Amino acid sequence: MPLWGGIEAGGTKTVCAVGTGPEDLRAEVRFPTTTPTETIQRIIQFFREQTSEEPLAAVGIASFGPLDLDPESPRFGYITSTPKPGWASANLAGSVRRSLGTPVCLDTDVNAAALGEHQWGAARGLDDFVYLTVGTGIGGGAMVNGRLTHGLGHPEMGHMRVPHDRDLDPFEGSCPYHGDCLEGLAAGPALEARWGQPGATLGEDHPAWPLEADYLAFGLVNLICVLSPQRIIMGGGIMEQRQIFPLLRRRVQELLNGYLQASEIPEQIEEYIVPPGLGERAGVLGAFVLAQQAAQGASGPIQAQSSAAT
Amino acid sequence: MPLWGGIEAGGTKTVCAVGTGPEDLRAEVRFPTTTPTETIQRIIQFFREQTSEEPLAAVGIASFGPLDLDPESPRFGYITSTPKPGWASANLAGSVRRSLGTPVCLDTDVNAAALGEHQWGAARGLDDFVYLTVGTGIGGGAMVNGRLTHGLGHPEMGHMRVPHDRDLDPFEGSCPYHGDCLEGLAAGPALEARWGQPGATLGEDHPAWPLEADYLAFGLVNLICVLSPQRIIMGGGIMEQRQIFPLLRRRVQELLNGYLQASEIPEQIEEYIVPPGLGERAGVLGAFVLAQQAAQGASGPIQAQSSAAT
Repeated sequence: MPLWGGIEAGGTKTVCAVGTGPEDLRAEVRFPTTTPTETIQRIIQFFREQTSEEPLAAVGIASFGPLDLDPESPRFGYITSTPKPGWASANLAGSVRRSLGTPVCLDTDVNAAALGEHQWGAARGLDDFVYLTVGTGIGGGAMVNGRLTHGLGHPEMGHMRVPHDRDLDPFEGSCPYHGDCLEGLAAGPALEARWGQPGATLGEDHPAWPLEADYLAFGLVNLICVLSPQRIIMGGGIMEQRQIFPLLRRRVQELLNGYLQASEIPEQIEEYIVPPGLGERAGVLGAFVLAQQAAQGASGPIQAQSSAAT
Repeated sequence: MPLWGGIEAGGTKTVCAVGTGPEDLRAEVRFPTTTPTETIQRIIQFFREQTSEEPLAAVGIASFGPLDLDPESPRFGYITSTPKPGWASANLAGSVRRSLGTPVCLDTDVNAAALGEHQWGAARGLDDFVYLTVGTGIGGGAMVNGRLTHGLGHPEMGHMRVPHDRDLDPFEGSCPYHGDCLEGLAAGPALEARWGQPGATLGEDHPAWPLEADYLAFGLVNLICVLSPQRIIMGGGIMEQRQIFPLLRRRVQELLNGYLQASEIPEQIEEYIVPPGLGERAGVLGAFVLAQQAAQGASGPIQAQSSAAT
């Protein structure tokens, strides 16, 4: 069985793994995502150490974005306009490919997590679902008719605009591009700026959580109205606060107000809005699925120059 | 060449046509959508009159919704929870199939319009685009990777929640289910309720239009964030007010604020947000595409009991 390398490059931490699937995870490492140079060095070092006996067949990269995923673009595979210091214009896929000499397939961290959940997790057997992460940022990957959505580039679900009642919540929003988009109102940095301490340190009964659920519910309602998914999987650090789930499910039902006829929403909401089946490994295991696609040549959704990389 | 019947059942008017495509439209009729009984009678009468010499190979129905598009449901093909009086629980597809004895394929009016624009209009050659109509209601159909989005049921894009500054616009919204969802703020009835006269009677420089463009821009930004479409086609009665297009394009650019890297939005916005190539016939011509699918048996996205209908 071919050995896959997976990289999940997140805004806060990077995860690297070697294996063939969730039941055969041979090595894993996590470290903070610092500068591109240092982060890429640690990635390469890990894979060199772990593959001295058996070579990797291919590497999948699940990266934060925005990414240039247009194979015709001279900046294909680059991270583009991220607010994360140092990373705008970083060529993560190219660096990994050159250093390791394997085929590489790149997609967004959330598209990869969707692939992982589809192959091994909470979206097995579903053709239409969304994976949404709420952490340092908010991002989503959608599968429609069994295939990931890319379109013009890739979705940036966190930057949806949602209602913001400034009398109730005068916080201006923390997105440097859009102020009070969904990410600017509900991602980790917004929580910390609004309440003066990190979300993880707020008690379970803190008023932060009903407000958080309200914003996320607006986002989910919009996803439901646009995509009509069969399930929504909610991952990321903020969703580790499991008390959000019941608040969020109830609020989504209230906002939809019986308009949609699918019984899944009124009757099976606990199975409709769910945590990831792969837990915090959705992204890095999804990167294994990207690696499978890289090894199959052009059959993957987005190939990082894999034909020249073997 | 097989002869197709197309029905566009809209919230305000119904259009029926017979032909093989936009260059061969042999007959067309438009009448107000009144009660289900009367409307269905007029539909059947038109097709009987027009097909006395050559029979229809199949009929496509592009209907307002919400529709039950689950083939396993006992109410498959029914209009479900519409606020339109008399139409909740109407079985349009079944009535047409029984009366005309042809295969019938049903989808939403906007999904059909998307199919029509893809085959003959402004979306030729595109795999990822949205058709959005702004009229009596707001609805959208999306093609992703070359296939229509259905998911759990079908999209209800008009019911997205968007920012609503009540100081600027104290209008509560006109959606009976959600108040100030996008449709409640920006569809025809909202315009008429807010300004005391129908949109079509307001002058080109009326302050209604910049406000309308603001709300629609929020909706488009959300569609772009979720679907990353290659183009957005805007049809429907309100979009006949062509002065909305430049306002809307500018506002979408302002709201995105350079975050997305695709050059189509900053550089080619006039080709990114466009009117339908088929004009007001997008829906009824899209119904021809549905009829083609009905004639091909199970290859259509949603079949209204066509196997039993021949």
